[in-house]
Amino acid sequence: MTDAGAVDEHTRGVYRDAGFTGSFALGERPAVLVVDFSRGFTDPACPLGFDATPEVERTRAVLDAARSCGAVVVFTTIAYDEGSRLASTWLRKVPSLGSLVPGSPWVDIDERLGRTESEPVVAKGGASAFFGTPVHALLVGHRVDTVFVLGATTSGCVRASVVDAVQHGFPTFVVQDCCADRSLGPHEANLFDMTAKYADGCTSGEVVRYLNGLSSTEAG
Amino acid sequence: MTDAGAVDEHTRGVYRDAGFTGSFALGERPAVLVVDFSRGFTDPACPLGFDATPEVERTRAVLDAARSCGAVVVFTTIAYDEGSRLASTWLRKVPSLGSLVPGSPWVDIDERLGRTESEPVVAKGGASAFFGTPVHALLVGHRVDTVFVLGATTSGCVRASVVDAVQHGFPTFVVQDCCADRSLGPHEANLFDMTAKYADGCTSGEVVRYLNGLSSTEAG
Amino acid sequence: MTDAGAVDEHTRGVYRDAGFTGSFALGERPAVLVVDFSRGFTDPACPLGFDATPEVERTRAVLDAARSCGAVVVFTTIAYDEGSRLASTWLRKVPSLGSLVPGSPWVDIDERLGRTESEPVVAKGGASAFFGTPVHALLVGHRVDTVFVLGATTSGCVRASVVDAVQHGFPTFVVQDCCADRSLGPHEANLFDMTAKYADGCTSGEVVRYLNGLSSTEAG
Amino acid sequence: MTDAGAVDEHTRGVYRDAGFTGSFALGERPAVLVVDFSRGFTDPACPLGFDATPEVERTRAVLDAARSCGAVVVFTTIAYDEGSRLASTWLRKVPSLGSLVPGSPWVDIDERLGRTESEPVVAKGGASAFFGTPVHALLVGHRVDTVFVLGATTSGCVRASVVDAVQHGFPTFVVQDCCADRSLGPHEANLFDMTAKYADGCTSGEVVRYLNGLSSTEAG
Repeated sequence: MTDAGAVDEHTRGVYRDAGFTGSFALGERPAVLVVDFSRGFTDPACPLGFDATPEVERTRAVLDAARSCGAVVVFTTIAYDEGSRLASTWLRKVPSLGSLVPGSPWVDIDERLGRTESEPVVAKGGASAFFGTPVHALLVGHRVDTVFVLGATTSGCVRASVVDAVQHGFPTFVVQDCCADRSLGPHEANLFDMTAKYADGCTSGEVVRYLNGLSSTEAG
Repeated sequence: MTDAGAVDEHTRGVYRDAGFTGSFALGERPAVLVVDFSRGFTDPACPLGFDATPEVERTRAVLDAARSCGAVVVFTTIAYDEGSRLASTWLRKVPSLGSLVPGSPWVDIDERLGRTESEPVVAKGGASAFFGTPVHALLVGHRVDTVFVLGATTSGCVRASVVDAVQHGFPTFVVQDCCADRSLGPHEANLFDMTAKYADGCTSGEVVRYLNGLSSTEAG
Repeated sequence: MTDAGAVDEHTRGVYRDAGFTGSFALGERPAVLVVDFSRGFTDPACPLGFDATPEVERTRAVLDAARSCGAVVVFTTIAYDEGSRLASTWLRKVPSLGSLVPGSPWVDIDERLGRTESEPVVAKGGASAFFGTPVHALLVGHRVDTVFVLGATTSGCVRASVVDAVQHGFPTFVVQDCCADRSLGPHEANLFDMTAKYADGCTSGEVVRYLNGLSSTEAG
Repeated sequence: MTDAGAVDEHTRGVYRDAGFTGSFALGERPAVLVVDFSRGFTDPACPLGFDATPEVERTRAVLDAARSCGAVVVFTTIAYDEGSRLASTWLRKVPSLGSLVPGSPWVDIDERLGRTESEPVVAKGGASAFFGTPVHALLVGHRVDTVFVLGATTSGCVRASVVDAVQHGFPTFVVQDCCADRSLGPHEANLFDMTAKYADGCTSGEVVRYLNGLSSTEAG
């Protein structure tokens, strides 16, 4: 991965000296947390959206592997009904999020991801998948021990969700080539921060191989 | 109020000696938190439901006063989509909650309460209105300083919501004659606990007078 | 168990009809959550305290079994430093809690429980062991799948903690003969509510046998 | 401010088009949230630490103004007792945080900030000041309507705290010249993200003037 190409060697050395040196082990009960791959973010026709086709397609490959082995899949989407819109402090900062109205197509999960009925779509009004939502209880209910985070945007809701995932106690992996953003600079800067401090970085190919391994073991 | 008729004088003395002696002041920015007055609980045709007509009607009077003075009104409803149902630990304990499916009439707020579009309905999967929901952020966003809690059931979701409301830092009032339950014993026992430890007890008449006072002040 | 002697048969029937019929399975990675067995509550010399000798002694037996098999043990204690005391809304309702000052003996865990250095003591300012604390992350970090709750008081912090434990997704068991309260009525009423709605009831003897079973398996 | 010197004009245009255009109004009940200006981070003798003298001195000026007008001041510090250390998932990723042991000087708030007894020090085990802590309840208890966030490190705990502050519903301001980090790249990248998406940026001079204005009004 070249995710941290933007970060110079000096910074890498400083982080090593500060002890940012650990990593996580993959477990046996994974979940894939798909952050805000709703049409509002993946359809360029929405002011908030942009073309995320490669990241969405790689995510589909991860999800297909997850479905084959029975891994937990959770989607989030940002949605504000009228009452929430009036109350939200965050919306005052980012007014365009107010177009994400329940029932609007922008709130729907991108259909290229093939969501099934048993995969919950958690509506949220904050940046983190965990804030003001039952996502952590849902992961605990499934006894998840490994969380893969991916989606949009890298520098916004993915970053916030990764920080919360590890804070909640889950070994956390950010699937770097499945994270999409509007702009390359923040995308790369946040992949660097996340992998340095909160999560292990991985690729969709690595995740698919890991999930297929689980699958054949189970099947075995 | 005779809410604690079931509690003997000895217990009241013990609580006084233990220092359960404080109370809250009414503020200027109230919210009414209507817990689970959905048809699943207020329609006896639902296995979870029972006749709560008097409590619903008194709640309507409180809500009309709240609407007149611009107080914040928030509804909660329990709802489980298929994915949440599979994950929920609480559902294993109370399987009948699984009938509260999004789109089913049991999830709708009782129409006798006259909910308007700008009053959010927060779906929850736990007992407390605050657990896994954005209710606290919504109250902070409106700078609420006074929370009235009422709804169903007294011994379940109202109790859990009252405990969380005060924990989150809000002066909390339980509107006793607007709290409904299936059975008198738990209803009375929980009103005693709540008013002894977490909230000031009040009646719908008192709340209406307070809200009308705010209203005329604003109007004044 | 006779915990619900105070609850009449009619109420039991109503609850059965409403579908409060589920139960949990014991898992393999248990935690014992000891709620507020600090000297402020177990020493009658403190205004908040009362004699809880039998419950403390039975809890010691549970903890000894937990220590033998390597189960997670977590203690909570209520503590308010000066700044927290000024901010706490709950303290306005229960001013006597303000005597629980860090460094005071009332905040110390009852020494009869034999706490070891590796057993965290989580300070809290709310009723629930989970509110404003890292307890849920700590349980997730240990991949706990079974939570036993006990301590003081049954009708206060134990009840609030049990509700939060199941909401957070943990199969929850309340160890009834290890829960202590100031007054019998609220004690019994809350054991009924908890076991009807949120947790399976059990005795300290049952927990010890379960933990010993784990222990010998591990040792085996 | 030149905080976003690292971010090119193209990115700024993309963000404008996406609707990241709002801002907050200053209120009347401010709090200053001082994130992790403990000696572990501000003393270069600690492996995690670095020289943050200018940021600490500017923070002292902000705090002196806050104290003059009675604004709420809250400090956070990272601390792990033995039990928390064993449980923490985040520590596996950043093992060096394990040196932040209660009682060690690294956990003490930098004495140059002149902390008083009534200013709470909230111990935390996560990145965000809000995660697993009572900070939000403390702010609600004081009816805070404006939160200034500053401290260390910009790209770590300050960022996480800013995201949570606005999610919890507080108009949030990041005091840019009071935020310190080990390395310039992540510092600047995170100031850009925070001010684009979650908080209004401001300088210590602006905060002091605002607080002095409150002060003279109150005194008036």
